[in-house]
Amino acid sequence: MRIRVFDTTLRDGEQTPGISLSPDQKLSIAKKLDELGVDAIEAGFPIISEGELKAVKMITSEGLSCEVCGLTRTHKKDIDAAVDGGLNYIHTFIATSDIHLEHKLKMTREQALAKAIEAVEYGKSRGLQVEFSAEDATRTDREFLKQVFREVANAGADRIDIPDTVGYATPEYISEITKDAIEATKLPVSLHCHNDFGLAVANALSGIRAGAQCAHVTINGIGERAGNASLEEFTMGLQCLQWDQKYETGIKPELIYETSRFVSKIVGIQVQPNKAIVGDNAFGHESGIHTHGVLNNPLTYEPISPELVGRKRWLQVGKHAGIHGMNAMLEEYGISPTEEQSKQILDKVKVLGDQGIQVTDVELLSIASEVLREAGIKRIVHLTGFSVSTGIGTMPYAFVKLNIDGEDFIGTDYGVGPVDAALNAIQKITGKISEIKIKDYGLASISGGSTALCEVTVRLEDADRNKVTSKSVGEDIVTTSVQAVIDGINRIMLKKTLREKLANN
Amino acid sequence: MRIRVFDTTLRDGEQTPGISLSPDQKLSIAKKLDELGVDAIEAGFPIISEGELKAVKMITSEGLSCEVCGLTRTHKKDIDAAVDGGLNYIHTFIATSDIHLEHKLKMTREQALAKAIEAVEYGKSRGLQVEFSAEDATRTDREFLKQVFREVANAGADRIDIPDTVGYATPEYISEITKDAIEATKLPVSLHCHNDFGLAVANALSGIRAGAQCAHVTINGIGERAGNASLEEFTMGLQCLQWDQKYETGIKPELIYETSRFVSKIVGIQVQPNKAIVGDNAFGHESGIHTHGVLNNPLTYEPISPELVGRKRWLQVGKHAGIHGMNAMLEEYGISPTEEQSKQILDKVKVLGDQGIQVTDVELLSIASEVLREAGIKRIVHLTGFSVSTGIGTMPYAFVKLNIDGEDFIGTDYGVGPVDAALNAIQKITGKISEIKIKDYGLASISGGSTALCEVTVRLEDADRNKVTSKSVGEDIVTTSVQAVIDGINRIMLKKTLREKLANN
Repeated sequence: MRIRVFDTTLRDGEQTPGISLSPDQKLSIAKKLDELGVDAIEAGFPIISEGELKAVKMITSEGLSCEVCGLTRTHKKDIDAAVDGGLNYIHTFIATSDIHLEHKLKMTREQALAKAIEAVEYGKSRGLQVEFSAEDATRTDREFLKQVFREVANAGADRIDIPDTVGYATPEYISEITKDAIEATKLPVSLHCHNDFGLAVANALSGIRAGAQCAHVTINGIGERAGNASLEEFTMGLQCLQWDQKYETGIKPELIYETSRFVSKIVGIQVQPNKAIVGDNAFGHESGIHTHGVLNNPLTYEPISPELVGRKRWLQVGKHAGIHGMNAMLEEYGISPTEEQSKQILDKVKVLGDQGIQVTDVELLSIASEVLREAGIKRIVHLTGFSVSTGIGTMPYAFVKLNIDGEDFIGTDYGVGPVDAALNAIQKITGKISEIKIKDYGLASISGGSTALCEVTVRLEDADRNKVTSKSVGEDIVTTSVQAVIDGINRIMLKKTLREKLANN
Repeated sequence: MRIRVFDTTLRDGEQTPGISLSPDQKLSIAKKLDELGVDAIEAGFPIISEGELKAVKMITSEGLSCEVCGLTRTHKKDIDAAVDGGLNYIHTFIATSDIHLEHKLKMTREQALAKAIEAVEYGKSRGLQVEFSAEDATRTDREFLKQVFREVANAGADRIDIPDTVGYATPEYISEITKDAIEATKLPVSLHCHNDFGLAVANALSGIRAGAQCAHVTINGIGERAGNASLEEFTMGLQCLQWDQKYETGIKPELIYETSRFVSKIVGIQVQPNKAIVGDNAFGHESGIHTHGVLNNPLTYEPISPELVGRKRWLQVGKHAGIHGMNAMLEEYGISPTEEQSKQILDKVKVLGDQGIQVTDVELLSIASEVLREAGIKRIVHLTGFSVSTGIGTMPYAFVKLNIDGEDFIGTDYGVGPVDAALNAIQKITGKISEIKIKDYGLASISGGSTALCEVTVRLEDADRNKVTSKSVGEDIVTTSVQAVIDGINRIMLKKTLREKLANN
C-alpha cells in the first residue's frame, strides 16, 4: 500500500520555540524535502507575517514536484492570504474539544462546526484543495468529532486530518477514531501526532494500520514542545518492520541522513546522539558482544543496514570491549597481534575505561604499539607553542609552533574567532605537509558553569581522502580545539604511515 | 495496577558508545535512581572489568531501597562474578534467534536452550533471584521462544524478560509474544525495548497492556545505538494517558527532570530540546495560538502540568506570536500597552522574526520602550572594551571595560580558559553592584566548520534571587559568551529597575 508523506517541518517544525527562518532558508529546506521525495509540504502559515507570505510565494513559484500546502484558521482572511501566496492547497483547522472551545475560542460546539463548514465551503469556492483538521481531535467528544468530520466532508473537504494536538492519545484510541473518520467521510485520512509522551511515531503508524493514508511528519521530529512524529522513523518503520502487508512511500531513504543534517544546521537544533535512524550513535557499537556480532554479520545488532539511510557503521573500544571488536579495529591499521598480545592490549584498554576515559583509536594504537614494541607507531606532530588573543576592536589572531618529526614549524593567522584563528594557523603549517583540511568542527558543553568541560569534535581529511574524526575534552575551549586538531592530524598521518609501511612489505 | 520499573541506565545506558563511567560516578547515579523511586536497577555487567566489579560492589554495599541486579551471560564465571559483586539478583541472557545462533554463537537451538537452563539452575543453586532474557527474542522463532521460556521457568527462573534487541518489533507483535510468555511460564514478565524505529516506549506500553508487569528503561532513553525506552516517557505515559485501567509506579514524578539533568551531565550526552518530558522545549510555547491558549488554560496546549515533573512553563515571542502571549510577557515587567501600541509592538517583533532573528524579552522590552517612549527602559550596561589571551604556558587572562549608567568600570581576571577569565573579570565588576552570579553556562555549535556559529546560554541570578536566562549566537566563542553575560546582566537589572519603579508608583 502506498502511504502519503506530508512534511510539516516548515510549519509545525518552525513553530519550535527558538527556530526562526528567513524566506531563503525556508526555500532551501523546501527544495531539499522535494528531493527527498515527500508527497506534500506544509510551507507555512501565510497570514502570520509579511515574511511568511513571501516565503510561501517563493516556494509555490519554485515548481517543486511535491504538493505545497499552507495552514489557515477558518477565517476568510487566512484563506485569502493562502491564495495570495500562490497556494492551491490549504490545511484549515478549528479546535473541537470542549477545553479548547471553552477556554480558547469561547464558542459553542455548534458555532465551531459552523465555522468549519464555512471555511471548507469558502476554500472550495476559491478553487482550493482543502484538508480539514479538528484541532485537539483526541480530546474531543467522540460522537461530536464524527459529526464534524461528516459535515465538513459533506461541505466538500478533500482530506481529513486527525491532530493529536497535545500528544495525549494512545495508539489504541488513535486506531478507533481513525476508523470513525474513514467511516464518516470516505475521504483520505491523515494523522498529525505530537510526541509529548514519546508515542508520536507509534500513533501515526497505528492510524495507518487502521486505514489512514497519510501522516504529517517533520525532519528530526522537530515541532511545538516535544515535536511531531519524525519523518525518518515513520517512513523507515513502515518500510522495514514486519507488518502483515507491505507499505511504500515516495521517500528516497539514502537521502534521509543528509536531509536530517541539513535541517539540523539551518534550524540550529542539534540531534541527540541516541536519536533513532539519524543520531550519531544509531549505527555505532561499543560493547564487545555487539561488535563481535556485527563483525560476523551486521544484522545481529542492526535492524537495517546503515547504507540504506545514507550512513556508515562505526565501532569503538572501551571497558565493554571484547577481543573481536578490538582486533577488527587494529586490523584496519594493518596490525595483527597474537592472541596473548591481544589479551594484554585489551586489559590495558579496560583499565583506562574503568577510569572513565574514552579509548579512541589513537589510544588503542598507542597501547598496541607499546605491547607490540612497534617502533613505527608514535605521535608525529607535537604542539610546542601556542598563543591566541581576541577582544573588541582587535582581530582574533593566533601563533602556533609545531614539531613535526623533529623539525620545527611556525604558523600565524587570524580568523573569525580565536578557535578559527588557531586552526587556520595550524592548517597553514600542515597544509604544506599533507594538505590536511578541517572538514567539520562541532562543540558542546558537557556540564554547567563557565568552568564547564567542553567537548570538541573535528573531522579532518587529507589529499588522499583519508578521513578521521577526533575528539578532545577540556576546560579551555581554544586549547581543547587545538588539541583535537593535533590529535586528528596525528591519526591521519598514522593511517598514512601504516598504509605505506604495509605497501612496502 | 502497580507496574515495576527496572532501570538499566547503568548497564545498557553505559553501553552507549562514548559513555564511560568511573565507579564513583556509577554510585552517584545509583543513589539518584533510588531516590527517584525505581524498583530495581541494573548496576552493571560484573565480569567485564575490574572497575565494573568494583562499581557493582560499591552499589550493593550502599543499602539502597531498590533491588540491585547485575547482567551475566550464561557462563558460570559471569554468575560467580555477580556473586563476588555482592549481588543476589541476576539478569542472565543468551540469544535465541537463528541469526544470532548461526552468526554469533555458532550454536544450535538445542545447545542454546541447554546453556540457558544450566545458567538458571546454577544461579538458583547460588541462591540468586534469576531473571532470564532470550536475547533477540523478537526475531526468534515464536514456537522456539515459547519453549525456551517454558523450560527456563521449569528450571526455576523467577522472572522472564523479552528483549527487542534491535528495536525491530511492532507493538502488535510485542503484544502477542508477551501473552505467549505469560501463558508459557505464569511468571512476571518484563519488556526490554530498543528505539531503532522510535517505538521503544510504545512497545514497552504494548507489553504492559498485554499483561507484562515490568519494563527495562533508562533515563533520557540512553543505551546501545538509538537507546532504550525512556523512563520518563514510559512512566508518565502509564500514569497520565487515558487507559481503560489505572496504572501506578513507584516513581516520584517531581524528581524526573532533576534526575534527567543529573544523568545528562555525568554521562556527557545532551538531551535534544524537543525530547518529550525532559527536553528544553517540552513546556515552551511560541506560536500566538498556543500561547494564547496556554494563558487562558494551560491544559489547552499542555498534556500535563510542567510542575508535575519538576519543571516550569516558558513563553517566547517571534513571528508566530499573537497579541495575547506578547502582552503576557510585557505584563511580567509591569508594562500594559494600549491595544494600538500592542499592535505596533507586534508588527516590529514580526519584522525581526521574518529576518530569522530570535526575539528575546530584552528585544521585546526594547521595542516596547521605543513604542511607549518609556524612558526607564534602556540598556544599562555597555561593554566598551574587552581583550583576552590564552595559550600554552600562559594563564588565560582577560580585561574588560564596562560602562554602567554612565560610569566606567575596569576588571581583569584569569580563569581555566579564556571564557572563564572574561566572565570572572565581568563578575568582579558586577559583583560589586548587584551581586550578579553566573549559575550556569552552556554552549553548542550550530553548524559545521571552524567558522561555525556557536550558541551560548547563560543563567544568572542576583542577590534578590532574580533569575534570567540569556542566549547569544556568534562566530567568536569568547566574545559571544561575554555578550550573553552582558545581555543577561541588563535583563536582570531591567527586572530590578521595573520592580522598583512599580513599587514607588
